[in-house]
Amino acid sequence: MKMPRRPFDTETLYLGAPDVARLVARRGLKACIAGVAGRIEADFRRWGEFDKTARVASHSGDGVIELMPVADAQWYAFKYVNGHPKNTHIGASTVMAFGVLADVATGAPRLLAELTLPTAIRTAAMSAVAARALARPGSRVMALIGNGAQSEFQALAFRDLVGIRTMRLFDTDPCATAKLVRNLQGQGLELVVCASGAEAARGADIVTTVTADKTRATIVTPEMLEPGMHLNAVGGDCPGKTELHPEVMNRSAVFVEYEPQTRIEGDLQQMPADFAVTELWQVLAGHAQGRRDADQVTVFDSVGFALEDMSTLRFLMDAARELGIGDTLQLVPRMDDPKDLFATIGTDTPMRTVARARSHGAAAFGAV
Amino acid sequence: MKMPRRPFDTETLYLGAPDVARLVARRGLKACIAGVAGRIEADFRRWGEFDKTARVASHSGDGVIELMPVADAQWYAFKYVNGHPKNTHIGASTVMAFGVLADVATGAPRLLAELTLPTAIRTAAMSAVAARALARPGSRVMALIGNGAQSEFQALAFRDLVGIRTMRLFDTDPCATAKLVRNLQGQGLELVVCASGAEAARGADIVTTVTADKTRATIVTPEMLEPGMHLNAVGGDCPGKTELHPEVMNRSAVFVEYEPQTRIEGDLQQMPADFAVTELWQVLAGHAQGRRDADQVTVFDSVGFALEDMSTLRFLMDAARELGIGDTLQLVPRMDDPKDLFATIGTDTPMRTVARARSHGAAAFGAV
Repeated sequence: MKMPRRPFDTETLYLGAPDVARLVARRGLKACIAGVAGRIEADFRRWGEFDKTARVASHSGDGVIELMPVADAQWYAFKYVNGHPKNTHIGASTVMAFGVLADVATGAPRLLAELTLPTAIRTAAMSAVAARALARPGSRVMALIGNGAQSEFQALAFRDLVGIRTMRLFDTDPCATAKLVRNLQGQGLELVVCASGAEAARGADIVTTVTADKTRATIVTPEMLEPGMHLNAVGGDCPGKTELHPEVMNRSAVFVEYEPQTRIEGDLQQMPADFAVTELWQVLAGHAQGRRDADQVTVFDSVGFALEDMSTLRFLMDAARELGIGDTLQLVPRMDDPKDLFATIGTDTPMRTVARARSHGAAAFGAV
Repeated sequence: MKMPRRPFDTETLYLGAPDVARLVARRGLKACIAGVAGRIEADFRRWGEFDKTARVASHSGDGVIELMPVADAQWYAFKYVNGHPKNTHIGASTVMAFGVLADVATGAPRLLAELTLPTAIRTAAMSAVAARALARPGSRVMALIGNGAQSEFQALAFRDLVGIRTMRLFDTDPCATAKLVRNLQGQGLELVVCASGAEAARGADIVTTVTADKTRATIVTPEMLEPGMHLNAVGGDCPGKTELHPEVMNRSAVFVEYEPQTRIEGDLQQMPADFAVTELWQVLAGHAQGRRDADQVTVFDSVGFALEDMSTLRFLMDAARELGIGDTLQLVPRMDDPKDLFATIGTDTPMRTVARARSHGAAAFGAV
């Protein structure tokens, strides 16, 4: 006879797309961007504590599907994310993402969350954290080239975290720009619709490129550069997908997230293997200089790194628990005897597959 | 004014642990093992059609967490799986797994399924497929060394697919063997409990090792080899975790799943980089010889490859649809305008996060 023992808890908090949309609405987008930015900056400062890997990509004719894992001593995280530029033709998003947080000590998955909306938030937060460290102090005007799904988030992150007041907008699709203008009405930003990328960049302190085409595009040419500009190059993020002319890279100080990954995926892929770059964490941690002077052109060659998603997943888990949002999944078996997997077959236990999660707050109120 | 358009369907079929246990019980374990074995064998025969990657592992002091991606022209699949040998001390399984199938054409996730139980099924099915190709015809006696969570599945797969009638059992933990004997009662197998691995191997046609310790163990020594034996080495499956003495490898013809991965993870990790092995798919496709003669010792140095999980995920999806098992998750957003992610914030749509899936069968009957 064995002593009965409470089975190891294997439940996973689940935040589906409606949960995450609700969480962002209730917490407020501004607070989410700021919260995620704070987590990212703190995590980048402890860069050495993470087990880092360049993401694993599977390319097809239509797009790419990637897995992005990272771990520290407590948490293992990964994100699933695709990039299919032609998806919009069938009414689907070019990017869809979800992610998982798991206990390093046991391997148990603790959070499964939709990350499409959070990816836009974390990408914008990352861009703003980089610009705060690299752009000229007092930057007020930003060109926003590419007005698709991520553009509102970039605009709001730069408004809140960098102090941008004027957005100069351009997209090859005027409907995208019209949508962006509609969504940014009344948000305290002066919006200037421009007829070209070059016009948008004119006089801008910061030029943000978030274009989606999987091609060797030249969104920013050397003629567009002005002294002291900061380029926030977000869209060149996989092999064969670039946004900056190589000469733009040559004339700039280039900063990256995780060098081994950016060498393959970033605008850096166009440059020689010994082209000098600085990992941003070194600037944030005070180990390396950022901008040298007010005339230097700086580039943040952003591709998106797994650590940003881990920071975001931890933000989401904490916020979901505080707000009482989410369901509980029995994603892996709960076992009375962990050596007896066989015994789990056909056990139609009272345990439900999905259960509504209880917030700590709700439980506390319920006890009153 | 835009024409209203039906949003792209982004729903994901969800099979939690209770769903999968129910599916296996209703379909029958025997049929599941045979069904998965059939899928694996068919997929191995079209090996060249897959985009293959060695799995990505994150090691910690307590264990390992891995991602295992693979794709063909239609499906992208990945499995999350951990290996934490000490988990049993806290009542947790050493292995927990889940996996995803996604459309290569769009990146949309179509299935999320618990894979702990299916991993045991697919590992046993893979072992039996290999033994069917490599063991001497007429093999009837198998040593089963390591009587933990996977052992019942190995026993039943070899009974059904290879024709094994006698199991010689050993585990350093007598409780594990007692559990195995209990679970295999009345299953048409003669069960012989042995006092050591060497005793279990005596006279066996096939020796299966499924031990869990993350150490350089020597479960099979050269003295235990008998002419014509087939070794099914399942437990040596990550760096620093082996089961066979190097001299056992030297005296055998060694077959592997995916050579780049097995060089790092299998018992092969002990051998020189030029130690000759044959990828099993070549034998199954008729491109390479299996066993040379009735006296040769053959080794299947199994580590578990992502393709086996893709075969399993497709089996589960088809079976779940036929049986009407599972829920539907809104794991990624459904968007009216795919360029307007911003508009999804705070849309408390009538769409539910989780919905009970309808089987094709149930829908058909409902219409009668």
